[in-house]
Amino acid sequence: MDKKLYEEKVSSREIFKGKILKLYFDQVRLPNNKITTREKVEHPGAVAVVPINKKNEVILVKQYRYPVDIVLIEIPAGKLDGREEPPIECAKRELKEEVGGQGGSFIHLAQIFTSPGFSDEKMDIYLVLDFEEKENNLDDDEFLHIIKIKLKDCLKMIKNGEINDAKSIIGIMMARDYLEIE
Amino acid sequence: MDKKLYEEKVSSREIFKGKILKLYFDQVRLPNNKITTREKVEHPGAVAVVPINKKNEVILVKQYRYPVDIVLIEIPAGKLDGREEPPIECAKRELKEEVGGQGGSFIHLAQIFTSPGFSDEKMDIYLVLDFEEKENNLDDDEFLHIIKIKLKDCLKMIKNGEINDAKSIIGIMMARDYLEIE
Repeated sequence: MDKKLYEEKVSSREIFKGKILKLYFDQVRLPNNKITTREKVEHPGAVAVVPINKKNEVILVKQYRYPVDIVLIEIPAGKLDGREEPPIECAKRELKEEVGGQGGSFIHLAQIFTSPGFSDEKMDIYLVLDFEEKENNLDDDEFLHIIKIKLKDCLKMIKNGEINDAKSIIGIMMARDYLEIE
Repeated sequence: MDKKLYEEKVSSREIFKGKILKLYFDQVRLPNNKITTREKVEHPGAVAVVPINKKNEVILVKQYRYPVDIVLIEIPAGKLDGREEPPIECAKRELKEEVGGQGGSFIHLAQIFTSPGFSDEKMDIYLVLDFEEKENNLDDDEFLHIIKIKLKDCLKMIKNGEINDAKSIIGIMMARDYLEIE
C-alpha cells in the first residue's frame, strides 16, 4: 500500500557543498508518474542532551542563532563530526565542551527528524541525571551562556514560548515523562 | 550581557533560490571579532495541526518524505504560501486540503523553530477539537494516506519511535497537556 507513496529519484544536482550543509536540486518521479523537483538539504546529523542536576535543574545554554537572528534558550546540542561518529560519543563530547562536568549514564530519549520536508537532519536526544557541572571547554568560536532552570519552570517556559526550539521542547517534555514529574 | 553573543553580518551571498528554499553563504563577525562563515537556509515558514475527533483519535497522515527517504507518520502540515500568509489561514487551508472536514476553533499550541542551527523555519502548531472528517482535496502532486490513532496510542508511538517527526511529537505532547490526559 505504501508503494503508492514513494518517489523515485530521476536526477540529482549538487548545488552547494559547505562546511556543514549540502544542497541538492533533484528531479523525482511521483506515484502518478509525473516529474517534479525536490530541494534537499543534507546535514551530518546531530545530538542534544538534557542534563539535570541533583536539584532538579536543567542545564541550558543561551546562544545566538544566526539563521533566526535571535538568542535562543536550548538544551546543549551539537553536530556529528561526520556521519560516521556514533551519536553517543558526540553527545558526551558536546556536553563536555558546552557545559563541562559529568553525570550518570546517558539515557536515550528519542531519535527525531527535525524538518523532514526539506532536510535529512536526524537527531538523537539523551537525558543525563545527577549531572555535576564543571568548567566548560568551548571552541574558540563558540559563544554561549549557561543557565540552570528547574525542570518545572522549563515546562512553563515551553508553554509561554520562552523555550521555542524544537529539540529542546522535545527533550524537556520527554525528560518529564521519564521522571514522571507532573 | 547578551550583546556578547551576537554575530554581525559582514557579507551575504545567495547561492540558490528554489521554489521553496533559499540558501545563503554569509560571512559574520563573531563576538571575539573573528570572521567566520554561516550557511543559512531560508524557508517560508509552516504550520501544523493536531486534529482530534470526538472519539479522541488524532487524524494523522502517512507521507513519503524525499529528503529522508522514508514514509513518516505526521500531523497534517504545510508551508506558508509566502511569508505574508497568516499562519492561521494556512492551517485552515492545509487541514482542508490534506484531511478534509472541520472542527471547532483553532487553539494555538506553540510557535517553534524546527532547526535554528541552519534554517529560519518557524512553525505554528494548532489543536482542533471535535474534528469531523470529510473527503480531502489533495493537490495533484500530493500523495498521502490518512490514519486515525487514539491520542494515548500516539503517545506510545512517540515513546517507541514510530512517530519521530519533531513537529508531530511536539503537537501531540502539547495536545495531551492541553487536554490533561495522563
